[in-house]
Amino acid sequence: MTAHEVRSARAYLLRVAEPPAPALAALVAECGPVRAANLVREGRVPGAVSRETEARRRVDRAETELAAAAALGARLVVPEDDEWPAWPFAAFELAAARGVDWAVPPLGLWVRGPGRLDELAASAVAVVGARACTSYGEHVATELGYELVGHGVTVVSGAAYGIDGAAHRGALAAGGPTVALVACGVDYSYPSGHAALLGRIAERNAVVSEYALGTPPARHRFLVRNRLIAALSDGSVVVEAAARSGARNTASAARELGRMVMAVPGPVTSAMSRGCNTMIHDGVAVCVDGARQVVEAVGRLGADLGQVTAAPPRDTDGLDPLALRVHEALRPRSAHSVEWLARESGVPLAMVRGLLPMLEERGLAQRTVSGWRLAPRRLRPV
Amino acid sequence: MTAHEVRSARAYLLRVAEPPAPALAALVAECGPVRAANLVREGRVPGAVSRETEARRRVDRAETELAAAAALGARLVVPEDDEWPAWPFAAFELAAARGVDWAVPPLGLWVRGPGRLDELAASAVAVVGARACTSYGEHVATELGYELVGHGVTVVSGAAYGIDGAAHRGALAAGGPTVALVACGVDYSYPSGHAALLGRIAERNAVVSEYALGTPPARHRFLVRNRLIAALSDGSVVVEAAARSGARNTASAARELGRMVMAVPGPVTSAMSRGCNTMIHDGVAVCVDGARQVVEAVGRLGADLGQVTAAPPRDTDGLDPLALRVHEALRPRSAHSVEWLARESGVPLAMVRGLLPMLEERGLAQRTVSGWRLAPRRLRPV
Repeated sequence: MTAHEVRSARAYLLRVAEPPAPALAALVAECGPVRAANLVREGRVPGAVSRETEARRRVDRAETELAAAAALGARLVVPEDDEWPAWPFAAFELAAARGVDWAVPPLGLWVRGPGRLDELAASAVAVVGARACTSYGEHVATELGYELVGHGVTVVSGAAYGIDGAAHRGALAAGGPTVALVACGVDYSYPSGHAALLGRIAERNAVVSEYALGTPPARHRFLVRNRLIAALSDGSVVVEAAARSGARNTASAARELGRMVMAVPGPVTSAMSRGCNTMIHDGVAVCVDGARQVVEAVGRLGADLGQVTAAPPRDTDGLDPLALRVHEALRPRSAHSVEWLARESGVPLAMVRGLLPMLEERGLAQRTVSGWRLAPRRLRPV
Repeated sequence: MTAHEVRSARAYLLRVAEPPAPALAALVAECGPVRAANLVREGRVPGAVSRETEARRRVDRAETELAAAAALGARLVVPEDDEWPAWPFAAFELAAARGVDWAVPPLGLWVRGPGRLDELAASAVAVVGARACTSYGEHVATELGYELVGHGVTVVSGAAYGIDGAAHRGALAAGGPTVALVACGVDYSYPSGHAALLGRIAERNAVVSEYALGTPPARHRFLVRNRLIAALSDGSVVVEAAARSGARNTASAARELGRMVMAVPGPVTSAMSRGCNTMIHDGVAVCVDGARQVVEAVGRLGADLGQVTAAPPRDTDGLDPLALRVHEALRPRSAHSVEWLARESGVPLAMVRGLLPMLEERGLAQRTVSGWRLAPRRLRPV
C-alpha cells in the first residue's frame, strides 16, 4: 500500500460523506483508509456508514482532485503524514468517549500554502468573533493578532469578515503565522471580499479545510468547521459576539475539547459585546484584555497541569480517564490482545489501539509477541 | 443616663479622634459612651486611646453641634438608637477579629435627611467608580442607579463627581432611596458642584457621615469613608475605575467585609475600564452588565447561604466561625459568665457579649441568673 494510495483513498473518503461522519470515521479507524474506501465504493458497509456515504459513493474523483490541488499549490495532509496534528486532534477521541457527538477528527485536511500543520498548531490561539463587529472589536482583534505573533503564537481563525479577518490581518502585519480554517473548499474564495486576504495567508502560511475542492460554504459547515478551529488551538478568544453567535459555538466546542476559553470584555451598552460579557459573567470564559493575558491564561493551563504532575509524581499522572482504564486492565505478567484489553477495560477497541502506544511511550505498557502487558517498573522513565 | 447624655457623649467622641480609632472604639465598647467620654476628657485613658484622642480632647462642643445639626435638619444616630444599622456593621467585628485593622465601626453617624438608616440599609447596593469617568461610565451608572431602585434596592454612593453622582442621580430620577456617604461634615457641600445634588438627597433620603460638622474632606478621609459605603451595602459595583482608584479601595473593603464585589466590564482600550476589567480578570469581581445581574449576584449570595441551611438543617448552620466557637464553649447544664466564655472560646470579650444575644435569639444559648448556658433542645426553633 503506497502513500499515494492512502492519500487517494482519503481524498475519496473526505468527499463521500458530509463531515462529521462518525460511522465512516470508525470504519476508517477499524480497517484503514484504503480498505474502508473500497468497502464504501462497493457499498459493502454497515447501515450507519451506508447512510453517511450512500448519496456520494459513486462520486470518485480523488485523482483529479489531487492533481487540481497540486496545480493550486494545495495538498492533502493525512493522518499518516508526519505533519498531521495528531496531538491536538486526540482531544476529539476523549470528547467522543464522553458522548460529544460532533467530536469526530477529520479524515484528512486540504492545505493551501506552505505551512506545516504540526508546527502551526504547536502553539496556537484562535481569535474569533462577530462578522458585523464594531470598530472597537476590529481594533482589538487586529492588535491581538499582531501581539500574539509577537509572543510566538499562531493565530487561528475562520477568515470571515469582521473579527476573523482583523485577527488574520494583525498576524500578517506582524509577519507571523496564521491559519485560516475555511468552511468550503480551499480553492473557494469565501467571503469574496477576502480573496486577497486568503491569497496572502496561503502564500506563507496555510488555508485549511476538510471539504473537497469546489465545495461551497453552507450554514451547517461553519459549525462543523468551528470544531477544527477549536481543536487546532490551545485556546479560543472571542473578541466580539452578539448574544447568539457562531463565535460562541467555537467557544463551547473549545470548552468541550478541554481548551481554554477566553473573551474580551466590552461596553455593556454594545450588542456586539453582549456575548462576550455574558460568557465572562457566566464563568464560561476568562476575561482577557490583550495578548499578554491570553498567553498567561493559555500558559496557566499548561503550568497547572505541570504542577499537578510535579507534586506527588506517579507514573500515571496526567493520563486521562480512558487511558487509566486501559492501563489498569494491563496485567504485570501475562500479555493480552488488544481485543481482550478492550473487553476488560470497557474502552472502545479503536481507542485502546490508539492509547497503547502512548502508554508504551510513557513506559507504562510493554508490547510482546503475544500482546500487551504492564511494563516492569525498571522500564519506566523517572 | 439619658438618651441625650449618650448622644452628647458620642458627638464628643466622634470629634475627639480621627476615625478609625480602634483603641477608642474598644474603650467605648468596654465602658459605654458616657463613661468613655468622661475618661477621655479627663485624660484618664490607656496610652493607645490617649494617642488617638490627646490632640482634641479639650475640644468639646457636642451641645453646640447637636443644636447646629438640628437647625440643618440633621441628627446624630447612635448605636443605642433603633435605627442603627447594627447588622450591617457586625461585619466590622468579624473582619477585625481576622486582623483587618481598619474594620472599626463608627461611634455614631451624622445623618442629614429623613431616611432611617436601618431601612435604607435593609437592601442596598453601592455603586462607585471614577470621578473622571467617560460618558459610557456615566450612562451605565445612571441606568444602574435608576434600575436598582426599580428592584427595591437603595443606591449607596459617595457623592463624588463622575460615577457616584450619576448613580445618585439615576436613583433620584426613579424616585427611590439613595444614600450619600460623605468624607466631610454633612453640612459641607463637597464637591461644590454637587451642592444641589446633596440637597436633593438630603431632602428625601440621607446624607451620612461619621465626621463632625464642619470637618473638611481630606484625602485619607475618602479611604476611611469607603469602609462605611462597603459595610452599609450588600454588595459594591464598580462601574468605571482606572488601574489604581478609590473605587477599587471600596471594592477591596467590601470583599474584606464579606460583601459581593461586582464590576461592569468596558472596552479594553479604555483606561477608565482598566480597573474593572482587571478585577474581573483576576476573579476578585463578578462581571455584571446591569441591575438585573447585580440583584442576581447579591441575591445569590443570600440564596446560597439559604441553600446551605436548607440541605442538612443544623441549629448552627449559617453561624460565622466566631459565633460557632462561642456556641461550642457553652455548657449544657452549668451556666458560665461572659468572661469565662471569652476565655474558653478565645473570642474577645466584647464580641462574646455581642454574639450571645444573637445565639439566644436563635435558640442556641440560654440566659440564666448565673450566666449563659447551652439552650435545651426543646427551645430551639425548627
